[in-house]
Amino acid sequence: MKFRVTKSALVDAVSQVSKAVSSKTTIPILTGIKISVDEEGLTLTGSNSDISIQVHVPAKKDDLEQVFMEKIGSVVLPGRIFGDLVRKLPGNEVKWEVSDKFQTTIRSETAEFQLNGLDPIEFPRLPHLSTDKMFSMSADTLKSLIRQTGFAVATNEARGVLTGVLMQLEAGELVCVATDSHRLSRQQAQVESSEEITLKNVIIPGKSLSELAKTLSDYSGYVDILVAENQILIKTEELSFYSRLLQGTYPDTNRVIPKHGDTELVSSTRELLQSVDRASLISRDGRDNVIKWTLRDGKLEVNSTAQDIGSVSEEVNAKVNGPELSISFNARYMMEALRSIESDEIRIQFTGAMTPFLIQPTDREDSLHLIVPIRTR
Amino acid sequence: MKFRVTKSALVDAVSQVSKAVSSKTTIPILTGIKISVDEEGLTLTGSNSDISIQVHVPAKKDDLEQVFMEKIGSVVLPGRIFGDLVRKLPGNEVKWEVSDKFQTTIRSETAEFQLNGLDPIEFPRLPHLSTDKMFSMSADTLKSLIRQTGFAVATNEARGVLTGVLMQLEAGELVCVATDSHRLSRQQAQVESSEEITLKNVIIPGKSLSELAKTLSDYSGYVDILVAENQILIKTEELSFYSRLLQGTYPDTNRVIPKHGDTELVSSTRELLQSVDRASLISRDGRDNVIKWTLRDGKLEVNSTAQDIGSVSEEVNAKVNGPELSISFNARYMMEALRSIESDEIRIQFTGAMTPFLIQPTDREDSLHLIVPIRTR
Repeated sequence: MKFRVTKSALVDAVSQVSKAVSSKTTIPILTGIKISVDEEGLTLTGSNSDISIQVHVPAKKDDLEQVFMEKIGSVVLPGRIFGDLVRKLPGNEVKWEVSDKFQTTIRSETAEFQLNGLDPIEFPRLPHLSTDKMFSMSADTLKSLIRQTGFAVATNEARGVLTGVLMQLEAGELVCVATDSHRLSRQQAQVESSEEITLKNVIIPGKSLSELAKTLSDYSGYVDILVAENQILIKTEELSFYSRLLQGTYPDTNRVIPKHGDTELVSSTRELLQSVDRASLISRDGRDNVIKWTLRDGKLEVNSTAQDIGSVSEEVNAKVNGPELSISFNARYMMEALRSIESDEIRIQFTGAMTPFLIQPTDREDSLHLIVPIRTR
Repeated sequence: MKFRVTKSALVDAVSQVSKAVSSKTTIPILTGIKISVDEEGLTLTGSNSDISIQVHVPAKKDDLEQVFMEKIGSVVLPGRIFGDLVRKLPGNEVKWEVSDKFQTTIRSETAEFQLNGLDPIEFPRLPHLSTDKMFSMSADTLKSLIRQTGFAVATNEARGVLTGVLMQLEAGELVCVATDSHRLSRQQAQVESSEEITLKNVIIPGKSLSELAKTLSDYSGYVDILVAENQILIKTEELSFYSRLLQGTYPDTNRVIPKHGDTELVSSTRELLQSVDRASLISRDGRDNVIKWTLRDGKLEVNSTAQDIGSVSEEVNAKVNGPELSISFNARYMMEALRSIESDEIRIQFTGAMTPFLIQPTDREDSLHLIVPIRTR
């Protein structure tokens, strides 16, 4: 194996695959990055038990040659040192040479590294996913779906399928749902798929999705999504992101979503968020971070009390309609929902002090958040 | 106690004193911030067992009124919530009212907080320091002194006086020294003081100095420094920073500093730092982070080997004079010294493979760093 590569192309690729490299594992090869070179260019792969990321550095990009292959081959190098090393190399071009025993020489200007490589045959193989169950969407829509549901998954691993986001596809409409049983977030989007493709009960670990969002942060083109029994693959032209799927049956959440509201509030998303954030300064030390809203006489009053610290009360600009209501809930759930909403104005619908209430942007119907209130004395 | 204050003035003051507030302590009042108001304006104080920070918010600044006192008084409020609260208040003006029992009402637009305050009589009193032992210097010079010595203090509390920076003043020249017995940094500066003032064995905890540097980060005027038996006070017009001094006698370090060198190296500070940084990628997992320099035939070669990982070798641009030499040392000590140096070019003087070597900028004589080499097989 022997090649030259421009440093900038290598730095970008390594920083992407590093997100999938295990820092601690009992399997040494999983702390490595696999590098392969052939006529097409360079391929880097990082893999842990949840996700795998593969980045292709094409031999030629925008008419500029960036990989000069002299002899094809593969090697696995320790991931932890590899990323730093590539970033800190002097010069603009890096020369690689790998011996039959995977001894790797990396030269750049006057610096020369010798690294003990591992046999790539030991490295996990990426699954092959068929294009039978494939659909496409813009990366921005995908990131928005993740941003508006990912925070609501259960974080305790013992909660099983609830630590993932449910993805369902029917007639070109993708629905994502996440709930930790105290709150729920649901977001829909139109995607490009053939009418026949239907997906049910595809559950992606929340952690994988937050890594995916980071991986795609600078990308705004289209992605292809391929689904198999226990794997999902999200593909751009140069990047492939694999995640395992959670096994089990996701609960039916449709029945918990109220169909109407008696008392209704319409307010600026930002002003409401700021008032909850302030009330949370008092409530955040408590077990459930409880704040209280009173909707009365067309007004919203926010209250919170903590015996040791003190109390806060605030009247917030809002349009309030319907029967008077006092309701208590976890301030953090409300802040996370409000922060995820991109619209300037929201509507909240209540059916009673002890029933879940519904938060939705006023300008779109494809997004909803639900919070279960807390019983207080 | 009753007053109004502009929010921006309050936010700045709170963020400064918060640096001295204990987050964990068995003495509840030390987790608080003391607020006092009188005709002159507002005074905020934070205090822990090492440092105290007091900030004065004058009633009028640049012809703009910022504090409107209605009734003088003091109260202590929980520091942890106070900073967040002030920052998150709506509006531009905050109204304060404190009852006889230290119940504190904070109003801003439609938000109203009630906080349980504490009796300020319980709050530590700041020491009164006489101006007998006072000198002055620019804050930039002080920050530079801290930056070029603070990193070299011992971090293990059991090392006593070596966890502090020694400050000595004679005939208007201030000398700062720090050593953890493996390396030493010394920096001198001219200050404004009367000829009679001599300071010996003033030892300031390294941690206090790094807090001081942060506190002064945006300030570039002059500071007055007052020294007493066991306290030091650094004062600007609006800020007073107190630190305890370490008790004990600082060792005489003059005798360990070599007077000349046999082998000498002159190089770009940045290029040398980058080469050490790269070599450290290989050495950093080892116990002493050892890298080796070979000076021979007018050249510098940098080497490092780690059995598990591999090796690195690099030739660095440098002017080398004198007898051939191979020397091993801790890469971190070298990087910290080189990072602290502001000059573009440095000279390193060696007297042998087992004796401390001297690092100095080529364009000034008031700064030196010394590193003790490591014996290798």
